[in-house]
Amino acid sequence: MGRVTTTDTASDPGISASSYDTARRRSDQIWQQIAQDPSGLRMLTGDRPTGALHIGHYFGSLQNRVRLQEAGVETWLIIADYQVITDREVLGDIKGSVRELLTDYLAVGIDPERATIFTHSAVPALNQLMLPFLSLVTQPELERNPTVKAELAAAGKSAMGGLMLTYPVHQAADILFCHGNLVPVGKDQLPHIEQTRVVARRFNERYAGGEQIFAEPDALLSEAPTILGLDGSRKMSKSLGNTVMLRMSADETVTKIKKAKTDSERRITFDPEARPEVANLLMIAGLSTGRAPEEIAEEIGDKGAGTLKMLTAEALNEHLAPIRARRAEIERDPDRLWEILRAGNARAGEVAEQTLAQVREAMGMSY
Amino acid sequence: MGRVTTTDTASDPGISASSYDTARRRSDQIWQQIAQDPSGLRMLTGDRPTGALHIGHYFGSLQNRVRLQEAGVETWLIIADYQVITDREVLGDIKGSVRELLTDYLAVGIDPERATIFTHSAVPALNQLMLPFLSLVTQPELERNPTVKAELAAAGKSAMGGLMLTYPVHQAADILFCHGNLVPVGKDQLPHIEQTRVVARRFNERYAGGEQIFAEPDALLSEAPTILGLDGSRKMSKSLGNTVMLRMSADETVTKIKKAKTDSERRITFDPEARPEVANLLMIAGLSTGRAPEEIAEEIGDKGAGTLKMLTAEALNEHLAPIRARRAEIERDPDRLWEILRAGNARAGEVAEQTLAQVREAMGMSY
Repeated sequence: MGRVTTTDTASDPGISASSYDTARRRSDQIWQQIAQDPSGLRMLTGDRPTGALHIGHYFGSLQNRVRLQEAGVETWLIIADYQVITDREVLGDIKGSVRELLTDYLAVGIDPERATIFTHSAVPALNQLMLPFLSLVTQPELERNPTVKAELAAAGKSAMGGLMLTYPVHQAADILFCHGNLVPVGKDQLPHIEQTRVVARRFNERYAGGEQIFAEPDALLSEAPTILGLDGSRKMSKSLGNTVMLRMSADETVTKIKKAKTDSERRITFDPEARPEVANLLMIAGLSTGRAPEEIAEEIGDKGAGTLKMLTAEALNEHLAPIRARRAEIERDPDRLWEILRAGNARAGEVAEQTLAQVREAMGMSY
Repeated sequence: MGRVTTTDTASDPGISASSYDTARRRSDQIWQQIAQDPSGLRMLTGDRPTGALHIGHYFGSLQNRVRLQEAGVETWLIIADYQVITDREVLGDIKGSVRELLTDYLAVGIDPERATIFTHSAVPALNQLMLPFLSLVTQPELERNPTVKAELAAAGKSAMGGLMLTYPVHQAADILFCHGNLVPVGKDQLPHIEQTRVVARRFNERYAGGEQIFAEPDALLSEAPTILGLDGSRKMSKSLGNTVMLRMSADETVTKIKKAKTDSERRITFDPEARPEVANLLMIAGLSTGRAPEEIAEEIGDKGAGTLKMLTAEALNEHLAPIRARRAEIERDPDRLWEILRAGNARAGEVAEQTLAQVREAMGMSY
């Protein structure tokens, strides 16, 4: 959470195989629990508001969140506006980005009646938790976080900013303030969840005499695929123009998919290693229809890339049709959007204040 | 502020002579302004609640704060409860320490009708400012802070805690949330004020398009003396048992002063270099009566250390008499104490929320 993790799952900034295996096994157990009885499960996840989302985000994480919501997992979605300033000095149109993100959430099927959607900056009691939590970690621990290191490198900066360095602790506050116990993540996000677990454990030991004020949350790894850019880039990215944005029309989608890079071989096969661009389109078509990409490839056979593209665009448009319908409805009533956010912020604020009161009580700071 | 600075003014963790001179000159101007027209001056200062205060704190800073209050400077006093956990893992009886500190404040003459006394942990909107402010400083800047380095060494730890590393940024939030423009400090605290000035400046530049949301506060250096321990130690410290605590009775004070270390020379002279213990008692007597220590030494002449001690104890007791009377009154109504704190917290909360709203507006985060 916190970062849009979808398209980052391929990167691996230094997670050990054994800790990955442990998380993997635990995730499998939780998936079973969700199927059998999801009561008591509270998911916290979210994104940095840096603009509208694309189908890479959708198939990689949004769709998974909606599934969890539909399965009965209590859903909390944070729009991490303070994370926007961890690695950039220019704010840009944050409010516009929040609006885009919120619209995308609702369009894909997040239900504000069941899910709580809120922004960082609107929940002071959550942010206050950063203070006691910072006392529970050392500077070397903060510096060791491999994701933070990787993000610093990605931001092309030499000096680590104070907010970048400490954001895993802030993220611990995001997860723990609402007693979230389930965080859908990609592999690269495991160090953050581990940091949150450490914070929860140390808080209970050091400040609550062993009483369990905070449960240690679990990472929920999913089998979400990585969607490549339509130009064959490793990543779908708005700035590269190689995406299908969720807000695009059906026609724009057809145009985009038609321009996708493929290869010169007429026969369509699903071979992600040797033919990544073709495999990527097959994957999009497969995800859109719920069919195996191999089967779609078989069906197209010798009909070539043109047919593959047409079929992919159609499948995707069909899949996105109800999402587009909801979007159109949302856009007819922009005030409603802000009402939803304000209601989510109010709800998050109430819960954060309760948690902060527990924390202050445990620390002997109730005056 | 933040740390009880009084008895630390002798230490100098690496302030350059030129930056000290600049601060010194600016302080002199402000003292003139206070004498002429203190309107618009808002002082923010405070202490970590680690227990009751002693006469070193009193003559070194509390008395100065009361003078500033009486001169008409608007007074904000922070009881920095979250700072207690920057360098220790055991919380102890924080509430008891807060009660002691609050009692000492009121006893020495801080007037809750004019001054706002509040605790860190009770003002979430203040603490939230830590987030945007952390984005304005880099890790190397945090690491360079000489006071933080010195405190880490003093705490005898090898690994810097996350809250210790970032507390100068938290202190910036303490000062800026109420638009404090005046911070009475010792020389060793100048780097913190400089950090706050940097945060204010960068916030205005980066997030407010140059608009002055935050004014850069000034350090107010005072001529406050350093009171040594009664055993001749460089520092008066409760744990060394070499103090006169403000809450001691007149009799206890006499006992303590009688046990003070002196030297074998019968003739009393004021010579802080050669005869620090005798000079220290003369200083206490001088501060208690408003007379020059040299003059008191002259008066005692050959009457020896016994006379010096008696005279010092009497002078101190006379000076402390009204403070003790107020303390007795306060202790008769303990509920009133907590009412005062709650009123201060409420007032600080209102102001913090206003400031946070300005900050969110400037950053485009009003939804």
